[in-house]
Amino acid sequence: MSQSKGTVVLAYSGGLDTSCILVWLKEQGYEVIAYLANVGQEEDFEAAQKKAHALGAKKVFIEDLRKEFVEEFIWPGVQANAIYEDRYLLGTSLARPCIARGQVKIAKQEGAQFVSHGATGKGNDQIRFELTCYALYPDVKIISPWRLPEFFNRFLGRNDLMEYAKNHGIPVPVTPKSPWSMDANLMHISYESGILENPKVIIHDIEILQICVPVKVTNIHDKTTCDSALELFLYLNKIGGKHGVGRIDIIENRFIGMKSRGIYETPGGTILFHAHMDIETFTMDKEVRKIKQSLSLKFSEQLYNGFWDSPECEFVRHCINKSQEYVQGKVQLSVYKGNVYILGRESPSSLYNRDLVSMNVQGDYDPCDAGGFIKINAVRLREHHRLQSKKDCKA
Amino acid sequence: MSQSKGTVVLAYSGGLDTSCILVWLKEQGYEVIAYLANVGQEEDFEAAQKKAHALGAKKVFIEDLRKEFVEEFIWPGVQANAIYEDRYLLGTSLARPCIARGQVKIAKQEGAQFVSHGATGKGNDQIRFELTCYALYPDVKIISPWRLPEFFNRFLGRNDLMEYAKNHGIPVPVTPKSPWSMDANLMHISYESGILENPKVIIHDIEILQICVPVKVTNIHDKTTCDSALELFLYLNKIGGKHGVGRIDIIENRFIGMKSRGIYETPGGTILFHAHMDIETFTMDKEVRKIKQSLSLKFSEQLYNGFWDSPECEFVRHCINKSQEYVQGKVQLSVYKGNVYILGRESPSSLYNRDLVSMNVQGDYDPCDAGGFIKINAVRLREHHRLQSKKDCKA
Amino acid sequence: MSQSKGTVVLAYSGGLDTSCILVWLKEQGYEVIAYLANVGQEEDFEAAQKKAHALGAKKVFIEDLRKEFVEEFIWPGVQANAIYEDRYLLGTSLARPCIARGQVKIAKQEGAQFVSHGATGKGNDQIRFELTCYALYPDVKIISPWRLPEFFNRFLGRNDLMEYAKNHGIPVPVTPKSPWSMDANLMHISYESGILENPKVIIHDIEILQICVPVKVTNIHDKTTCDSALELFLYLNKIGGKHGVGRIDIIENRFIGMKSRGIYETPGGTILFHAHMDIETFTMDKEVRKIKQSLSLKFSEQLYNGFWDSPECEFVRHCINKSQEYVQGKVQLSVYKGNVYILGRESPSSLYNRDLVSMNVQGDYDPCDAGGFIKINAVRLREHHRLQSKKDCKA
Amino acid sequence: MSQSKGTVVLAYSGGLDTSCILVWLKEQGYEVIAYLANVGQEEDFEAAQKKAHALGAKKVFIEDLRKEFVEEFIWPGVQANAIYEDRYLLGTSLARPCIARGQVKIAKQEGAQFVSHGATGKGNDQIRFELTCYALYPDVKIISPWRLPEFFNRFLGRNDLMEYAKNHGIPVPVTPKSPWSMDANLMHISYESGILENPKVIIHDIEILQICVPVKVTNIHDKTTCDSALELFLYLNKIGGKHGVGRIDIIENRFIGMKSRGIYETPGGTILFHAHMDIETFTMDKEVRKIKQSLSLKFSEQLYNGFWDSPECEFVRHCINKSQEYVQGKVQLSVYKGNVYILGRESPSSLYNRDLVSMNVQGDYDPCDAGGFIKINAVRLREHHRLQSKKDCKA
Repeated sequence: MSQSKGTVVLAYSGGLDTSCILVWLKEQGYEVIAYLANVGQEEDFEAAQKKAHALGAKKVFIEDLRKEFVEEFIWPGVQANAIYEDRYLLGTSLARPCIARGQVKIAKQEGAQFVSHGATGKGNDQIRFELTCYALYPDVKIISPWRLPEFFNRFLGRNDLMEYAKNHGIPVPVTPKSPWSMDANLMHISYESGILENPKVIIHDIEILQICVPVKVTNIHDKTTCDSALELFLYLNKIGGKHGVGRIDIIENRFIGMKSRGIYETPGGTILFHAHMDIETFTMDKEVRKIKQSLSLKFSEQLYNGFWDSPECEFVRHCINKSQEYVQGKVQLSVYKGNVYILGRESPSSLYNRDLVSMNVQGDYDPCDAGGFIKINAVRLREHHRLQSKKDCKA
Repeated sequence: MSQSKGTVVLAYSGGLDTSCILVWLKEQGYEVIAYLANVGQEEDFEAAQKKAHALGAKKVFIEDLRKEFVEEFIWPGVQANAIYEDRYLLGTSLARPCIARGQVKIAKQEGAQFVSHGATGKGNDQIRFELTCYALYPDVKIISPWRLPEFFNRFLGRNDLMEYAKNHGIPVPVTPKSPWSMDANLMHISYESGILENPKVIIHDIEILQICVPVKVTNIHDKTTCDSALELFLYLNKIGGKHGVGRIDIIENRFIGMKSRGIYETPGGTILFHAHMDIETFTMDKEVRKIKQSLSLKFSEQLYNGFWDSPECEFVRHCINKSQEYVQGKVQLSVYKGNVYILGRESPSSLYNRDLVSMNVQGDYDPCDAGGFIKINAVRLREHHRLQSKKDCKA
Repeated sequence: MSQSKGTVVLAYSGGLDTSCILVWLKEQGYEVIAYLANVGQEEDFEAAQKKAHALGAKKVFIEDLRKEFVEEFIWPGVQANAIYEDRYLLGTSLARPCIARGQVKIAKQEGAQFVSHGATGKGNDQIRFELTCYALYPDVKIISPWRLPEFFNRFLGRNDLMEYAKNHGIPVPVTPKSPWSMDANLMHISYESGILENPKVIIHDIEILQICVPVKVTNIHDKTTCDSALELFLYLNKIGGKHGVGRIDIIENRFIGMKSRGIYETPGGTILFHAHMDIETFTMDKEVRKIKQSLSLKFSEQLYNGFWDSPECEFVRHCINKSQEYVQGKVQLSVYKGNVYILGRESPSSLYNRDLVSMNVQGDYDPCDAGGFIKINAVRLREHHRLQSKKDCKA
Repeated sequence: MSQSKGTVVLAYSGGLDTSCILVWLKEQGYEVIAYLANVGQEEDFEAAQKKAHALGAKKVFIEDLRKEFVEEFIWPGVQANAIYEDRYLLGTSLARPCIARGQVKIAKQEGAQFVSHGATGKGNDQIRFELTCYALYPDVKIISPWRLPEFFNRFLGRNDLMEYAKNHGIPVPVTPKSPWSMDANLMHISYESGILENPKVIIHDIEILQICVPVKVTNIHDKTTCDSALELFLYLNKIGGKHGVGRIDIIENRFIGMKSRGIYETPGGTILFHAHMDIETFTMDKEVRKIKQSLSLKFSEQLYNGFWDSPECEFVRHCINKSQEYVQGKVQLSVYKGNVYILGRESPSSLYNRDLVSMNVQGDYDPCDAGGFIKINAVRLREHHRLQSKKDCKA
């Protein structure tokens, strides 16, 4: 038997992918330690532990991180009112550094030079995971199989993994693959990929409005159509009002410096707010959107404070108007019991590229590039760590 | 009969206040033109017109501004995703410049040097209204009765207005005054003042949780109490999950530059998000909050992109933590059919001052100051207008 | 003799204005305590003390605040790299809260309910002074003579003050008034008002270029004129290079996360940078400029990082271009020994209004308004103080 | 002879590096077109053209881009007051997209699928160059020799290039290599690398102060030393005042909305401003600095407007103070004829890593990573181009 290339701590979930990676890493000559963090997902942890041992893991660590996840990650998120692009409460983003920190701790404790994970080469998680590792353990080597040609060229789809599993004694899941990928933790459950890669696919369907912002509203059920600004706004108010959409009770800060309380009902406005934001995110470049969003904050404040007719508000309106050049399309949504649910969207100027983002199709994208991207983003983090370590030594 | 002091265009609503103001202005020696804009509120415009004539208005203008309100004000708001302090969709703020613009048009057309309105000296509306007037008609004189000692010292409460109305043949409303003040337009209905000035008063009550963020959760109905971080988060997840709170279907921008689609369920996180934001706005200074909010945007992006363990995220977390020093208190809320409704709040470090903000109590506040405040804020707007006019003359 | 209206602590400088105010306050029925802080200005403090006593001050306090000014105000300014509108190092702004704090301390110690100062009703200092007073001593009453009609209508110019001084035994300065007003402290000397109110007046004149940005450059000495973009840029490079303008040696942060060192010589670019910034501040609304400046920061970063051809940089260039609509005019400047000195400027779209800003002419401006402006801005500060006091009581 | 791999348009400068690259590309089987843009650098363009032909270039394009560089790139920079990290006027950053645009135009015109350049794998220029290429010509293939192991492992230093040049008939420069690398264009000349990689090395030395901010000032010439806050500030005022440092004549915006003119002299404050900013950039993480800078803008405005004693200013001072944790060190600078010249700096908490940034030493850095970094940053740009092309086709 050849000499070991070293020890890898693998972020192990018990599922098909990381089970195959575990065996594949051994095949490549590594010793593997499986690491499985409990951040609140539904999982048979005992079964996962047995399975990892059976597949040849040298050691298996299962850690309950739920308390530190809530106290050290979720609480700061709540304190910050952290929200991404106005809507997403960052459930997965919060869990990643918590898990990676645990994994690094084990790697150092066990003297392992390598860590590995099953995140794909197109997602955010690879970045969150690896930046944390580089920041806390700057000399670590990271094995990211889904970015290695010898791996991703061998496993082109789920069938290849199933085949490999059968040949290597890896238990194969009996239930069919769900139509999307889920990430569950204490904070949230997210669904991604699979059929969701088509942004038009409707997940829940209760009552449907078809909206072109802001030129036409169609009720898919009863075929009501409105196509003038006023008429469609009145119609949305009627629909929204019936369902109690957009009611808030808030404390707010007046321009003159006192706090007051208000209750607001904004049925049609709330529906349009969600529909517009959805089609905007669909069609507007990410960086343009960030700049536009900072202008919108200024616009909102100008508006609230009474400066509509001011040179600065004229200027900001001009800029925001420019940003809307390509914001067009159809949004399908459901108004139900006080909520507006976005169901699907389509647009001739969509910047969404299904092939590019798909986990099954390569698209015009080389997953190896993400490795360089991450390493360069980590240059600064490792320098910081170097300086901190120097200080800690002295102290 | 003495000579007229000039003509005033009064923003007239048909209600008790502006009816009294109409008569009072005449008493002071002005000729009064009543102006009533239709921005979608429920109103018997014909009756209001007759009433204004009966009270001695020289002319009455009733204008349907609904179309221009939607097209020229609401649409830009929707395009901007305009939102104030993350929650308020700015329904009243959008209507004010639209109405004031109409009123200024009439004032110029009729050669009136004065405009007047019934907004109080503590609110936002006086500012929005007057800034628009100064911006569009820099030489206008504004009569703001609720900031004039000869008016506000005479009419100390509703009873004084009722008395005055009876003595001057102004029809007195037969229904009792509603327990709050409402502003309705196409975009929204808002409720303010009155019993709402007590931020603890609960408006709707369906199922109630009592929350100390983040140390305790109590279900007011069944007395369930959770007081450890993990336990209370799990409980909120259970409650929120049962009611389908916090489910979104969005297109988002990945760090690596592609757009993807995700569906998220964040039940407990969404409840805490709303509860925390509510108590924060209640206890945090307005300007501190604005700075904290810009740090939160940075934090959210760092978090999303994987930079939790970075010098910048450490720095931002430290700053946000500092901002939370006085953020404490109880929030009552209801979780119902996918929604989180804030019902009331209280805190030992509240910056809410009921006397200060009350429309019935003067508090330590001199309404005359608001006039100077507005005039100074308008210095810049009038300069801008002066320059624009010079240009228009030449062109 | 009538009863005293109470005790006033007056910020006293020893000059004509505050000497007259001291006597005038006594005339109005107040007892006056003179307060004079040493923040590094050149002054005969002993003579000032004698003079105040001679004029009838009940007490005179002269305090050396230089050490606390440097340590508690200048240092934080340096740490913040604090700069206003890219150029002004905020010397006066730093001294005001330091002086006002000292004055409030004396007022509390002496049981005085009033404070007073000689700042005009058009400047920044009244605001800085009074906000500090309201923040530290919320119940204080402020007497601001230059905003009281009974004072400013009586003293319309320097001659009225001289007359009053003669009639009340106040020593009259023998030297003619300097052609501007100066504020000197440890941090800086500033010159304002007087002949400087004409922005075209040239203060120093060494070698002059006349610039229309960016269409023409004229050397006033030798009449050289360049009027094509390339030609004028080459000419400015020649002039700037000869004088060593625009040389820097800096550490900078590369996009890829490492720090590097660079030395740059940018002669013509530096001259244009200063000329353009000057004419822009002259012609652009303050709030538009703030928004434009935040866009410029983004533009600079995009540019530095290589994103010229990106949707976000196209968007930002469009917005900046819009902001330049009225930025036009002539700047006179001198290039001398490595420096670019702005000497004067003029523009058809200047927003500078000499009458409005003049300390001698009233313009279309009512100084009383500033009182309301300040009081409203202080609402929040006094609420904050109220809450803090409540906490301190309990602790 | 083997078949050509295709045609490469090489950004050619005429120097040793790109001459070697030209020959090496041919060796690898490409046909090479040399492209040399005139953006104002001093160069014998005719000689460069002959040399490129002699080395085997299929075609040579020399283009005078000076006019479009000034009009389309420098002007927008001036309009934006574009400045990076408060000091750098972005001369190189402006030229790169201009040159790359020219090169892409030639590549399309000549049907070349490849472009190449001689930028190193650690600098900013590779990124600026390649992002522009990907944005304007999304399908282009970029050959970046200094990031290809077969190139950078072969040419480890200048000697290897000299050797290669001799063996391939490439004219070898007779003058010794300058001690730094220069980039010259119409806008500026920059000096980087070489001996400048040591941030302590002093380039010009006229009169030297040694500063520890803010604890000690030493005059290296006469050994004067000041080590109390007040004493050192007075000393800097004396030195700065003697040399006329920190004098400005500006138009500024008052809080109350009018423009005024001020002249300020801030000798010691200006010296400290530059010294502190220098040591801060040397020791503070880039992203922390960006956040701190946005807080400093807020601090400056609060300070200017009189809000030192406000909850928001207390909050911002706390945050800025936190950011200064590691800001310490020595700055050497010269005060001469109105200017402050930074000469060198050193610090125990420097984040500057000479090995990492050195062009001669590899450090802990893999230049290949930069390729992935750039490609990932270009994902968005290419998507944008894809959408724009679709639109242009339809139009």
